[in-house]
Amino acid sequence: MYREILDHIRKYVVLTPEEEELLCQNLEYKKYHKKDFLLEAGKTCKGNYFIIRGCVRQYFINKKLNEQIINFSIENWWIADQDSLMTGRPSACTIQAIEETEVFLLPEKNKAALFRQVPSLETYFALIMQKAFVAAQRRLGYIFNMTDEERFRHFSSLFPEFIQRVPQYMLASYLGFTPQFLSRLRAKKH
Amino acid sequence: MYREILDHIRKYVVLTPEEEELLCQNLEYKKYHKKDFLLEAGKTCKGNYFIIRGCVRQYFINKKLNEQIINFSIENWWIADQDSLMTGRPSACTIQAIEETEVFLLPEKNKAALFRQVPSLETYFALIMQKAFVAAQRRLGYIFNMTDEERFRHFSSLFPEFIQRVPQYMLASYLGFTPQFLSRLRAKKH
Repeated sequence: MYREILDHIRKYVVLTPEEEELLCQNLEYKKYHKKDFLLEAGKTCKGNYFIIRGCVRQYFINKKLNEQIINFSIENWWIADQDSLMTGRPSACTIQAIEETEVFLLPEKNKAALFRQVPSLETYFALIMQKAFVAAQRRLGYIFNMTDEERFRHFSSLFPEFIQRVPQYMLASYLGFTPQFLSRLRAKKH
Repeated sequence: MYREILDHIRKYVVLTPEEEELLCQNLEYKKYHKKDFLLEAGKTCKGNYFIIRGCVRQYFINKKLNEQIINFSIENWWIADQDSLMTGRPSACTIQAIEETEVFLLPEKNKAALFRQVPSLETYFALIMQKAFVAAQRRLGYIFNMTDEERFRHFSSLFPEFIQRVPQYMLASYLGFTPQFLSRLRAKKH
């Protein structure tokens, strides 16, 4: 059960068997059915979620009362509302399973003590956060520098699995399109 | 000279006098005139820059050969091309002084060894990175959820000092406006 998360961590840092054991003792295994909530808007985020299997989306309700998707996460990715974790305030966003999903939660309340015992894990999380920041910065760059169609083609080439796996209206929301516009783009492709 | 950076770090973590000394030994003081480059596109980013005094902008050249500003940084903020630092590849963006600017560079080549000697600094940088990620995520949310005018008003209320300090055409670039549109918005305000 711990194989995926330990394999992922080993790509970045080296842990001793004792350190791996300590980490595993601090993880909570959770299973969600499709449409279950990992986090609901208005509640405080409990910690960082590592996706073992499945797919989730992170969204907020915008002023037009539509769901605006800001992130997806699949196997071997972490997801959380870092804003809520950082401030301790209730979350503005919701994280919901799109498929049956299994995760490990690293509870925020365990994190500081675990990092003191296993400093390499702090290095690992700093690298993951740096990657997430770079991805968010790149995404901002794409929004300013690509047409909507270019952005869709680019996203498709980077993450072809998403195009198959995620309902079309969610993909449209993530890219800031109407579902109709995305539909026309996909039709053009063939 | 080290007062500002040490004060900033003390807001997040506690360092012993010896640890502060180690940090200071690893910093390089640099001074730039207005329009000097801290980083030029095509070169590899040397490390993280802490602004002691001054103001810089980070931009890339977009496909229309315009400068697209993606970040500003002023006193007590860090700036770097995290993408280049993470991958070791040449940077796609440029960091340039808008005013006479003094910085401390924490060279990337010193970072790993320094973090081993002073683990609290890794905690500090992880927190700074988390803040930067949250800011980038919020900015993505604003782009999808606010009109251009709302985004300008919001930015003005969060960072009133920028409105005074940064040339109007740079502010327009950062917000994704034409200078003419920003000019009309500012005129409306009065």
